Amino acid sequence: MSEILDLVTVISRLLKAENILLLCHKNPDGDTIGSAAALYHVLKGLGKTVAVTCSDEIPARYDYMEIGMYDGSFEPRYIVAVDVAGIQLFGDPVSQYADRVDLCIDHHPSNGGYADAMLLDGEAAATAELLYSLFESMDVSITPLIANCLYTGLATDTGCFKFANTTAKTHLVAARLIEAGADLVKLNNILFESKSRSRLEIERIALESLEYHFDGACAIISLTKEQIERTGVEPLDLEGITSLPRMIEGVRVGITLRQQPTGSYKVSVRTEVGVDAAQICAHLGGGGHKQAAGCEILGSMENAKAALLSEVERALCKES
Amino acid sequence: MSEILDLVTVISRLLKAENILLLCHKNPDGDTIGSAAALYHVLKGLGKTVAVTCSDEIPARYDYMEIGMYDGSFEPRYIVAVDVAGIQLFGDPVSQYADRVDLCIDHHPSNGGYADAMLLDGEAAATAELLYSLFESMDVSITPLIANCLYTGLATDTGCFKFANTTAKTHLVAARLIEAGADLVKLNNILFESKSRSRLEIERIALESLEYHFDGACAIISLTKEQIERTGVEPLDLEGITSLPRMIEGVRVGITLRQQPTGSYKVSVRTEVGVDAAQICAHLGGGGHKQAAGCEILGSMENAKAALLSEVERALCKES
Ligand SMILES: [Mn+2]
Ligand SMILES: [Mn+2]
Repeated sequence: MSEILDLVTVISRLLKAENILLLCHKNPDGDTIGSAAALYHVLKGLGKTVAVTCSDEIPARYDYMEIGMYDGSFEPRYIVAVDVAGIQLFGDPVSQYADRVDLCIDHHPSNGGYADAMLLDGEAAATAELLYSLFESMDVSITPLIANCLYTGLATDTGCFKFANTTAKTHLVAARLIEAGADLVKLNNILFESKSRSRLEIERIALESLEYHFDGACAIISLTKEQIERTGVEPLDLEGITSLPRMIEGVRVGITLRQQPTGSYKVSVRTEVGVDAAQICAHLGGGGHKQAAGCEILGSMENAKAALLSEVERALCKES
Repeated sequence: MSEILDLVTVISRLLKAENILLLCHKNPDGDTIGSAAALYHVLKGLGKTVAVTCSDEIPARYDYMEIGMYDGSFEPRYIVAVDVAGIQLFGDPVSQYADRVDLCIDHHPSNGGYADAMLLDGEAAATAELLYSLFESMDVSITPLIANCLYTGLATDTGCFKFANTTAKTHLVAARLIEAGADLVKLNNILFESKSRSRLEIERIALESLEYHFDGACAIISLTKEQIERTGVEPLDLEGITSLPRMIEGVRVGITLRQQPTGSYKVSVRTEVGVDAAQICAHLGGGGHKQAAGCEILGSMENAKAALLSEVERALCKES
């Protein structure tokens, strides 16, 4: 288990550290990248030798963060993981550092404590929100560049202040970052107003497959493996599709079937409060949370739908 | 022209007023409704006789605001317009009050000053943001219900803190409203996570019509009047479609053609910075802003597209 540190101790360790390597999680999102970038710029401003590494390439849309990536030019002596909840999330080749992480800065309550020491705030909407408090305590001046990095983490992890993890603190930090020069028009445009052609193509196919059942209380979209392969859609974009059926007015249970390369169907069930998604999936060998659950079904698409609809009918009857 | 009031004067007039009627603009949005509702609850809390009126019905999704609508049971003696930039926006039957508005509270810099007196802050992201400052000065206690009303105005006018009108002040007010009990999970769900079946159907049709030109630098979607009629889509949902083509990665000019009941094509052009949308439309008899403009074209869909594409080509060549 990690030693749990307070802000003051973290600051003193960072100030003493030399040759610092910052680790992101694989399939990097705006929070792990933005947090690592912000810490990189702060430490560089303190005269440190520092660099960032990640198992996957940093998407080009984040170029504005001007991150210095690790090129092997120094031997890491202090290793900091940022927004990484567990070692399985490092991916190759970053997992080589997994058993020698000196400090982990994170906001995932599930963090198992793989690092020697940890700065954890499970209430923070994003690691970037926690880092803002750290920088404030360090009396670091937040440049517009650092503000852009932190805003990116804050905005992406909250769906632009829309998700349930958003708090008053999140908005307060956003206000400070805008005062510090975060370019929210540019950033929101990059982060939220842009969709790939393949994402739109899979949305089109999904909408074509849309079916309503039980007087519109249940909506199903279904995608074959050929359709998924043909669009070349990214995993994150494909995942995004699963929130679509539940968004429709009047829909209480939204279901997405995605055929896997093996032929089986990966099923995502999203429900409104009052209908238990985990129970629907449990009867089909899966599980999850009350409003979001999943299972895997073998056989044909029609059989998979029939099995799901019979469980949905049961759940809707129980409720009303 | 209106007399321009400061917060203190507005407060003293509201405290003196009796039998107050609050006016919303037609096609009411979250800001005019949320602001009127918040002011309604504050004035009611002060023991006033007060009610709200609007030319169009308040959509049912706003029921949580518990607005007291005007039923003719008192003779209005003090009339306040909220978030209404000009008298043409009252609609019938509210326009009967247009020439006797005592006070207008608004954030539109374009407000012409039709009311006797005005509280105007053109920097405020929403009328709700301005009202928060008013209530703060009045030392009103913000109940969770009032916080929900103000949050609705703030969040809808900023696209959930995404649009360019969002400022540090906007986020500070959001933080205070959450502290006061605004139920942001419920509200964001109602305001942003819900789409009508007809909206999804018109999105499907729009995506099917999607064409790319000039190596993906231009995307066009086109809707016939039969398609628009068949879906029964609301004007606001149809308007929302026009931002779709420009959102696609690599697209510099996004164009939407909507056939009007008369048969002509209403064209919306959205461009990235560096490509002049107003100029593209000006050559076709239209106009607008640099990044968002429009025009109307007669004839067949194919002719309309050909005319547009030749203007787009010219604009793209000029730029690169
Ligand atoms: Mn995170
Ligand atoms: Mn407004």
